[in-house]
Parts: sequence; structure tokens; C-alpha cells
Amino acid sequence: MTHLVYPGALHTRFHHALGAMHLMGLTIDVLRGKGHDITKEEEESANIAILLHDIGHGPFSHALEHSLVNGIKHEDISMLIMEKLNVQFDGKLTQAILIFKGQYHKNFLTQLVSGQLDLDRMDYLNRDSFFTGVSEGVISFDRIIKMLNVLDDNLVIEEKGIYSIENFLISRRLMYWQVYLHKTVIAGEQVLVKILKRAKELSSTGTILFATPALSHFLTNQISEDAFFKSDIHLAHFAQLDDQDIFASIKAWREHPDRILSRLCKMLTDRNLYKVEITNDAPDVDRVQRLKENTEQALNLTADEGRYFVFTDVISNRAYNAGDSNINILLKNNATIDIAKASDLSNLESLDKTVKKHILCYPRII
Amino acid sequence: MTHLVYPGALHTRFHHALGAMHLMGLTIDVLRGKGHDITKEEEESANIAILLHDIGHGPFSHALEHSLVNGIKHEDISMLIMEKLNVQFDGKLTQAILIFKGQYHKNFLTQLVSGQLDLDRMDYLNRDSFFTGVSEGVISFDRIIKMLNVLDDNLVIEEKGIYSIENFLISRRLMYWQVYLHKTVIAGEQVLVKILKRAKELSSTGTILFATPALSHFLTNQISEDAFFKSDIHLAHFAQLDDQDIFASIKAWREHPDRILSRLCKMLTDRNLYKVEITNDAPDVDRVQRLKENTEQALNLTADEGRYFVFTDVISNRAYNAGDSNINILLKNNATIDIAKASDLSNLESLDKTVKKHILCYPRII
Amino acid sequence: MTHLVYPGALHTRFHHALGAMHLMGLTIDVLRGKGHDITKEEEESANIAILLHDIGHGPFSHALEHSLVNGIKHEDISMLIMEKLNVQFDGKLTQAILIFKGQYHKNFLTQLVSGQLDLDRMDYLNRDSFFTGVSEGVISFDRIIKMLNVLDDNLVIEEKGIYSIENFLISRRLMYWQVYLHKTVIAGEQVLVKILKRAKELSSTGTILFATPALSHFLTNQISEDAFFKSDIHLAHFAQLDDQDIFASIKAWREHPDRILSRLCKMLTDRNLYKVEITNDAPDVDRVQRLKENTEQALNLTADEGRYFVFTDVISNRAYNAGDSNINILLKNNATIDIAKASDLSNLESLDKTVKKHILCYPRII
Amino acid sequence: MTHLVYPGALHTRFHHALGAMHLMGLTIDVLRGKGHDITKEEEESANIAILLHDIGHGPFSHALEHSLVNGIKHEDISMLIMEKLNVQFDGKLTQAILIFKGQYHKNFLTQLVSGQLDLDRMDYLNRDSFFTGVSEGVISFDRIIKMLNVLDDNLVIEEKGIYSIENFLISRRLMYWQVYLHKTVIAGEQVLVKILKRAKELSSTGTILFATPALSHFLTNQISEDAFFKSDIHLAHFAQLDDQDIFASIKAWREHPDRILSRLCKMLTDRNLYKVEITNDAPDVDRVQRLKENTEQALNLTADEGRYFVFTDVISNRAYNAGDSNINILLKNNATIDIAKASDLSNLESLDKTVKKHILCYPRII
Repeated sequence: MTHLVYPGALHTRFHHALGAMHLMGLTIDVLRGKGHDITKEEEESANIAILLHDIGHGPFSHALEHSLVNGIKHEDISMLIMEKLNVQFDGKLTQAILIFKGQYHKNFLTQLVSGQLDLDRMDYLNRDSFFTGVSEGVISFDRIIKMLNVLDDNLVIEEKGIYSIENFLISRRLMYWQVYLHKTVIAGEQVLVKILKRAKELSSTGTILFATPALSHFLTNQISEDAFFKSDIHLAHFAQLDDQDIFASIKAWREHPDRILSRLCKMLTDRNLYKVEITNDAPDVDRVQRLKENTEQALNLTADEGRYFVFTDVISNRAYNAGDSNINILLKNNATIDIAKASDLSNLESLDKTVKKHILCYPRII
Repeated sequence: MTHLVYPGALHTRFHHALGAMHLMGLTIDVLRGKGHDITKEEEESANIAILLHDIGHGPFSHALEHSLVNGIKHEDISMLIMEKLNVQFDGKLTQAILIFKGQYHKNFLTQLVSGQLDLDRMDYLNRDSFFTGVSEGVISFDRIIKMLNVLDDNLVIEEKGIYSIENFLISRRLMYWQVYLHKTVIAGEQVLVKILKRAKELSSTGTILFATPALSHFLTNQISEDAFFKSDIHLAHFAQLDDQDIFASIKAWREHPDRILSRLCKMLTDRNLYKVEITNDAPDVDRVQRLKENTEQALNLTADEGRYFVFTDVISNRAYNAGDSNINILLKNNATIDIAKASDLSNLESLDKTVKKHILCYPRII
Repeated sequence: MTHLVYPGALHTRFHHALGAMHLMGLTIDVLRGKGHDITKEEEESANIAILLHDIGHGPFSHALEHSLVNGIKHEDISMLIMEKLNVQFDGKLTQAILIFKGQYHKNFLTQLVSGQLDLDRMDYLNRDSFFTGVSEGVISFDRIIKMLNVLDDNLVIEEKGIYSIENFLISRRLMYWQVYLHKTVIAGEQVLVKILKRAKELSSTGTILFATPALSHFLTNQISEDAFFKSDIHLAHFAQLDDQDIFASIKAWREHPDRILSRLCKMLTDRNLYKVEITNDAPDVDRVQRLKENTEQALNLTADEGRYFVFTDVISNRAYNAGDSNINILLKNNATIDIAKASDLSNLESLDKTVKKHILCYPRII
Repeated sequence: MTHLVYPGALHTRFHHALGAMHLMGLTIDVLRGKGHDITKEEEESANIAILLHDIGHGPFSHALEHSLVNGIKHEDISMLIMEKLNVQFDGKLTQAILIFKGQYHKNFLTQLVSGQLDLDRMDYLNRDSFFTGVSEGVISFDRIIKMLNVLDDNLVIEEKGIYSIENFLISRRLMYWQVYLHKTVIAGEQVLVKILKRAKELSSTGTILFATPALSHFLTNQISEDAFFKSDIHLAHFAQLDDQDIFASIKAWREHPDRILSRLCKMLTDRNLYKVEITNDAPDVDRVQRLKENTEQALNLTADEGRYFVFTDVISNRAYNAGDSNINILLKNNATIDIAKASDLSNLESLDKTVKKHILCYPRII
């Protein structure tokens, strides 16, 4: 939904997957150049693992997880798809799957796919900067990659890369607040979640809704996590589902007789989104109640229907998580030290704190 | 369909319209700075005219014009939409419409909207370069704009801008062959044209096809030019129609019982496009016939059905058209001279020649 | 000396002065657009003030201040030059001088020339990023300028610019450590300081040195602060002095009979610089003494001569100084708050701490 | 002298040499990937050859060749320096020298160093574009390199690279007229040539001139081509000579008693250059004579002295030279064809024509 604020941001997971795989190639060259043994087969497997790392994401992944495909984790779907591909390609993905799962004996390959310094993040920050024009997200991915090394089977950063890593962590934090959690982006995502919830609700009570075949499958069936992984039919439909199914159907629902659904769909397609307030403290309960009542009255809604238009939620972001998989700096004496300690300022330690914010959404009409 | 070759090229007419309007603002500042009187109202009108200059384009404009909405010119649809907006905005678009139609007394404003040096081209060349990564298309739009002037109510370029104009004309030519008329782009567009033709054909004989409401309208109705402009219902559906309607429907048609439609749709969505040959001379008739027969046999098609899979066509491009609206260079003595004469090389004169090429398309399976 | 590490960094104060003036123009447009009254004359004066803000810097400003022109502040020289220009231009710089001095009644104009958010910094961070290729220094100068406002005659940043300011402060900090205080840059500057000190020392004892006329003036005369500002002759020579005088003379001194001078000059021109160690704690006194003794022995030097080759010093950097001229954020309720408080993380507060580091320099030969 | 027009253009031959060597590395990777055998030693030699290909250029190479070091070709000096380095490095440059001279059996390596598609041009066009900001010079060097191939020991371009080559040739032509032969650049170079000629003239008649040691050597000695290559002393001084010697000396000559020398030096350092007229036809002889007489009168000069201030000359540029070393396109059938024939427009053939222009220079004072 970032394109609602930054119209150029129409880039896709396909670009990102190709880009991350490209960075994997550069990284493997660098690590080999530093004497680390990586076989041709491992290179291919690492490339496959990063190429497919996001394959299980549906369209508007987070919105969908909160509405149509509750409780089914995208990591598990990725895993399922890889295993199906592995059958199709005669077991050639076995090693890639081990790397993806963190079960391959060279742990640093897994860290390149998923970790504090993985090539996923190296790719998306610069890509998102490029397509949004938000220069705060620019990182020196090429320099960071050149500073990567492996010690005791763990990825480390050579000492002189420390400022580039600081910049990387800070950039990531800023991109969260400036782009990914921008007020208008949140407003768009929340409308979408509510649309899909309403559509599902209507479907479950027998109302007929126009929908593409793939979307129809998920509207009209209540699929448990168990069921999803038991029968191929669900994955087959899931694989066909993309943004176009959602958007094309929403456009058709503008004219649906259900007042709530049609209003929500018009809000999204006419870009007449919720007003969103982001605050450090929880919004005042009385005010929320008042907004809700006013909205219900203005739109002639029941209290139950009102929750589609006025509601609160919590968003959060932690730039750096100094847990098990922290970023280690390789000193010249071959010792390592956590980046938050190596930095000469305390600013990095503060990044380790989760920042939680409250959001309050309500329609602009009142 | 450029994104089939350059995945980043997902930018839209919306970006382009905003960008061209932005350039209009810069240009008006420059012209005012050179002493040309442009009122506030004219500025607003010129901005509106350029903002809306492409509004009548449907999705995949050229493909659609050859299949679903035959014989209805996008310029006329733009005009119709502007007139409807003019009613809605109490006549505030009247001047913009005059500029768009070339009927306003300051002709140079029309030339900025549509002409050899219009801001349409200034915007799209650099935008397409940016999103495709094809650096050959980069032009000095900012320098060209600074060199613009008006003489006798016509846009002219000051003498020292001549090399930037040369570069602009050459860049445009190169972008045509490298991007817009790239073999794979043509292949994608041709598959799309054939899909829409087939769908229309099936619809017209009563076959039921899944389609979004907007697309359905154009599949099931045969709308003449006259009819289109007489009843509001057609424009209402046209305005709702976008890429998502087309793509979402094509995805559904993969499973349609009609063998031709489903095969074509799979070709597009599986990126298994026609093989395209581009040649200076017309392809050998016998060879085309042979390809056709082989294809018909392989796919078990009638001769009539075969034309969906093997066919020829002509594409063309003329970089610079030294006709009525040529590019004039303003010399220091205030005389003007056509760019093709002003350039010290004959290379620009050669740009005035239309380059025609032949294309031959056939499936990869044979 | 940055070009020793980043060869592209040959940009000059001339570029920077033009760039900062360009940003002044943009900023004044923005502030006028927000309703702040800035007269044509004030615009010209602000432009002059920023154009000339660095005019008093000699070549290798800091190195020179520690060797040839001790105790003469570049701000005072800038002032002197502006006053001379003011005489030449019949008093047209009077207002610019007031702005430069902070004595003009619109204080925010002075803050644009010199303050926590001045256009000096806006320009040099991006310029240095561009020419060094260090992407960590990229800031959103254009967005920051659009977020500038004036409250009670003070520059403030509108609330939604807060992340861009965070990025600006962090970028500045990173550029210090990655570029301006890079080990090799320090090594180059230190060699230069020692060369100039030695040359001055030799000159003062009557040794004849090749030098361009301008450099010769400062080598052979001991000029006090008082004297500098009393007689025009000193400024006349100072104005002629630039990098070329220094470098051309150093090249000639490679062959000077003084062993110390010629060795230092060869170190610089052959890029055989000091080894520099940067540490948080002061280097071990015994080790420094040992290095000094070894060097003196290896090069056959007296203890007094040894200080040209082995020495320690302190460098420091404070990214943000929350003193009188702090950065204030303009909230929506028109209240202001210091950026360090407005940020949702404590990382900005940590930027307020001066970071001091110790350097130890010694020749690579030992 | 390009920096007189484009202040950012302070980049040096050092950058260019590094850049061209970098491109050599990329190219060798590409060619190896296409199955062409290039040994490690050949790679090193090709790298050395391109790194040193310009080493014999003095400062302001062309200006110097017309004044101080007449008749000594920079290619011969490059050769001499390589041979001296070869002695110093125990013959390790022997193969590089063969490649540089065109005597190595793999001719395509020589073509990469010097030819219509050499890496010299690939580097300087983009580099000059970057530092001047003239976007017309941007070429797809990376794409061109990927399209390079070798056939019968000659560099060829694969067919689909043809548009990138067209763009490269056109860009080069435009950069000549827009940058390298810009009026103000020519004016600066011509002043410099005249300064050095006058200085040499004065020196040869015994006038004492301030000069750095290296420059002094070439002012006070008349060195024939023979002499230059016979004694090491000349090369030793030549190797020390750079822009700083020239500029630092010119600054000193502003105050020289010779009226002509001091006037010329002030013209350069005060940026009060000749007025330059560039025309397709030779300037009118009578007008030139009149300008000369006026100038002589205004400045109180003899006719002989007048030639320093009013004069004509010829400049020329041929974008593409379809001679022995033409650019061959590799067709899919493995035949090759000259680019000028392969292009579908005649514009490339026109590039084969040398464009000659006349210049007329005179001071602005008259």
C-alpha cells in the first residue's frame, strides 16, 4: 500500500527475490575471496534458498493473514512450495531447504538468507529507497558485503565496516516510520483488512459476491491450518491469488448492496481513507467511544457495524534485536564484539528497544 | 508489456501525468523569465491540459483498440472526459480544452501539450529510462526546458540547445527499438491482442466467460463509435476498466474449455510467448505458410484457428517528423531554422525517414 | 586531503559556496510560500552572506592555522574581505554583513547561514557524498528545506520532518568518522602540518626555500593577528595563496638539503604517509617513547627532530550540540520541542556527547 | 580547462586510468565467459597496458605540445616510461608493452587498449558526464561490455548491442561539441597556449621568470625530440611537471614586467578570456585584420605582439572513423558487418565525416 504515498513504489516481490539472489552471488564471491570454502552446489542452494525465501507470501500478506487465511504462516507455505518444487526437480532443492530451515551444517549460509544482516534486508532497503525516492533508506550494501566475513561458522562484519552497519540499522528504523508505517499506508492497509473481513463475513452467511476463482475459494471456504496443508487444492488456489484478484474484486464490490462493503471499497478506490492518528500513548477511551457513536449515527450503523469504521490498534518496530542472532564485529585481533558495544555512541543500544505506537482510525466524514 | 523484459517498468500513466504537469510548471517559469506573458489562469489551464492529455487511454491502449473498442480514438475519449469534468467543475476547464484542441490563441501552449518538443515526451523518455534502467533514453530535459523560447507564437529552441535536441531525438529513436518495440514486448502485446480477440469472438457467439463487470461490458456488447459517445453507460464502464480487470480475467481463462483461449492465456501468464522475428524485408511467404501448417498440425487446429498462433505484421517508427510542426532553432540574429538543417551533420535528416520493420510471430513449440 | 582515500573528492570551496547559495534560494522560496516576509534586498543579502561565508579560509585551512598563520581566525578574515568588498560595491553588502555577524533583526536569516540546520551543512554533506561515493552521507536536503519554518524569529522543523533530521544528524556523524577523520586523511593532514612547520622553522633561521610569492610571504614573515589586520599587504598575499602554491612548493622541497623537510615532502608526494592509530584511550606513553627512540635511531635524528615523525594528538566530534542553538521541532499545536526530546528513541540524546579519540602517528619504516 | 564551464570537472587522468583498468577486468571476465582463452599473465598485461596508456601525457597535454615540448609525442613518452618501469620490474611489463604497441599475437587485447571501442573511451565518456553533469554523454558501458565478443582475433559487438553502440558514437560526438570543444574551454586553452609561448619566448631571450624547478627546465632549455629521448634528465623533469607547476607559475607571472605575459596571465586567472567565435566557414579576413588593428591600438602593441590576442585556428572532430579499425557487428549467422551498414538509418554513415570548424579569438575589451 506504500504506493498510496509514494506512487513510484509499484515494485514487486519478484524484483526483490531477483535482487536478493544477485546479492547472494556477490557475497559468495567475497567470502570465497577471503578463503572460505563454498562449493558450487552450496552456491546454487544458497541462491535457491534466497530466491524462494518469500515465495509463500500471498498478496498483501499481512492484511490477508488477518482476514482470509488466518493462522497459516507464510514461512510454512514457503516450505510447502519448496518441497513440492523439490519433488518436481528430483531432489535438487534438498540442500536449499536445509539452508532455509537452518539445518545445514554451514550455518552462515542460513544467516545470509535470514538473520540480522541477511541479503533480504540488504536488497529491500535500497530497492524501497529507489522506488519511493526516500533517500534516508540508502545503505552501502556493496560496502557491507565487502566487509562480511565468517568466524566460527557465523557471519561477522570486519571492524572498518562498523559505520556502514550503523547506517544500515538507522536507515531501517527510519524507513519503518517514514515509509512502511506511514499514516496513509496504515490507513490503506486497514481499509483493506476491513474489506476482506466484511467480504468473508458476508460469504460465510451465504451472500453471493463477485470474485475471481482464486479469491472465491478463500471467501467461501473456511480453511484451517491443518486443512490447508492436507489438500493440494488450497495451495493451488493460493498460488493463483495475487493483487489483481483482490483489486479487481474490490472494484466490483463498490456496487454491492451491502452498505458496509460498498462504502469500504469506495473508500479504498477513491482514496478517501481513514484518518489515522499515531500516538505514543493509548488514545483516550472516551474520545474513541465518542467518535464511534458519532460515526454510527452519521452512517446509520449498529454498534457492531461501527467497528469497521472506528477502531484502535498497536504497531511496533524494533530496529535491532541483540538476541541470539546479534551482529558481531570482527576486531583486528580476531575477537568479536556485539555492534551495540563496539559503537562509540550509545545510540545503537537504544535501537534494541521495541518502539510501540498506538493507532486510532476513523472516517474523514465526521 | 515492457515489464516482460525490464521487470522494473511497472510505472503507470498516473506517474507520467504528474511528471508532465511538473515539467509544465518548470517550463512556464522559464518562459515567463524570458518575458513571455502567461497569466495565472493560462498556467492552470496548461497544467490541466497536460495532466489530462492521456486520460482517454484504456488499459493496454493499443491492444484494446485492436480488439475490444475498435475504431474509438483515445483522443476523443480524452475530450469527452474533459468535457464531463468541465460540467462538474462549472466551466473551469474551458480554457484547458481550447489548449488541448489547439484552438487557444496562444498556440505555443498547445505545442507544450502536444508537439515535437512537448512535455509528454520530455517526461516519458526519462521516466522510462529510469524504470527500465536503459540509459540510452536519458535526456537533458531540464536543459532543454531552459533553452525553450517563443517566437511568433511558436516554441523554438535557442541555438545552444541544439546538441541536447539532437540527443533527445536520437534517444527517442533508440528507446523505440530497444524498449517499446523490443521483440519480447511485441510478443507479449501480440498474445494479449489475440486473447482479447478470441474472448470477444467467443462472447459474440454466446459463450460465457468469467470477467469483471467492466470488462464484461465490452466483451458482450458490440459498441460502435457512435454508440460509445451517445450513451454514458459505455464511458462509465470504460473508466472502471484497468489492467487488473484484464489480467485477473486472463488468469481465470487459463482453465476455460476453449482450447485456443486457454492456450493463449497460459502462454501469457506462463511467459511462454511467441517467438518473434523482426526483419527489414517481409518474411518469406512460403516459410510463413509452412510454419502455419506445422502449427495447425501440432496443435490440431483449423486454418482459421491457426491465425491466432502464426501471423505477420508491420511496425514502424519515425524519430522526427519535419512536417508542419518541425523543431525550429532560434539563431542569435532572431532568425529560425529547422533543426535538421541547423545540425552540422546529416544524421538528423535521416531521422525524418519512417523506419518500417516486419514481424513474424509463431509459437515456440514447433 | 580526503582525495588520498577517495580520489574523486577534488571538489572545492567554490562548488560548495555556489551550492549553498543555490539552497538559500530554494529555502527563501519555501519560507515565503509559508507566509514569511522576506524582501528582495534581504534575499540578495542572505545569498551574499552564504556565498561568502567561507571566503576567509586559506588552502588546507586547519593545517595552515596550525603552522603558517597562527592565531588568525578564518571568520575574521571572511569579515575583513566582506568589508573590503562592501567598500568596493558602495555599501551594498552592509545588510549581508549584519546577517553574517548575527546582528540583523531577522535572526532566522543568520541561522540559515550558520546554525544547526544551516545551508552550509545541507550542501556539504550531499556534495561530499557525491564526490567520495560514500552513500552514508546522503541526506534529504530537499525534503528538510521543505519542512523548514520560522517561529518567533527562529528556524524550526515541522513535525513530519523529524526522521529526515535524525538521518541528517546521523549522516553527519558517520561522515566524520568515515571520511573527514579517516585514518589516511589524518595522516595526510599531519604530514602537511609538519612540512609547513618545518619550512617555517627553516625560513625563520634564514634558510632559503623555493616558494611561490604568496607562500614566500608567509614563510619569511612572522605575522601576528594584529599585524595581519593592520596592513593590506598580508591579505593581498593571503588572497593569492591556494593549494597550488603549497603543492608546487612541496614538490620542489623534495630535493631540499634539509633531511627532515625533504623526507616529509617525499612522504606526502610519494603517498608514504604516517601510520595512524586511532583509539578511545590515550596511547601507552612507554610505547610512544619507544617508537620515538626507534625512529630517531633509524633516521639518525635528535630528540627534537624526532617530534616531526612520532607524535600523538586528540581529535573530536560532536554530532549535535543541544545548546543555545538547538534544533526545534514545530508540533501541530504550534508548540516547539527540542529534537532530542521529540525523537522516540534515546539515540539522539547520545549524539549530544562529544566523542574524543586519540591519534598516534609514526612512520611506516620502523 | 573544462572546469571553466563545468566547475565539477576536476577529475584527473589518475581516476581515468583506474576506471579504464576496472573496465578491463570486467571485459576480460565477459570474454572468458564466452569461451575465449585469456591467461592470468595476459590479464595482468592488459591491465598494465590500459593503466599506463596515458602515462606520457604532460599537464594540459595539447597546450604543452604546442608550446613547451614541441614535436615530442605523448605516445613515445608513454613508451619510454613503460620501458623504464620494465627495467625496474625485471621485465614483467614486456607483454604489456607488446600489447600497447600492437605487437602481441592476440590483437583483440590491443583493441581493448586502443581502438574504436577501447576501454579508454568507455571510461572517459561516462566519467566526464558524471563530473560535468552533461547527461548527453551517458553511455551503457556495462551493456556494451557484455555485448563484446572476439571473432578472428578482432573485437566485435553482438547484434543486439547495435543500439548501444549507436548511442555511444552519438554521445561521443555530442560531448565533443558540448564539452571538449565548448567555446569557453577553447578560450581557456588558447590563453594557456599563448601564455606558455610568451613565457618560452621571453626565457629564450634571457628574461628571468619565476617557475617551479620542473617548469623552469622546459622554459630555459630548447629540447629537441632527439635530445628528449637521449638524456634521462628531461624525462625526470617531465615526470615532476603537473598542473600545479603551471598554475602556480602563471599566478606569479600576473605581476611580471612583460605587459603581454602579465595581461595574458590576468586574463586566465581573472577568467576574462578571449571572446571565441566558432563558425563553419573561415572568418572574414578583413574583419580579423580590423579586430587585430583595433586591439593593437587599444593595447598599444606591435603587429607581432598583436598575434597573442587576435588569431584564428581550426578545430575538428570525427565521431566514427570507418577505416581499418571499424566497428564490426557480429550477426547471428557469425558473419560480421560494419556498424555504419548494420544500422537501419543512414545517420551513422554521416558520423564518418570529419567536422571541421573555424575559431576566431579576440579580447573582450574591444
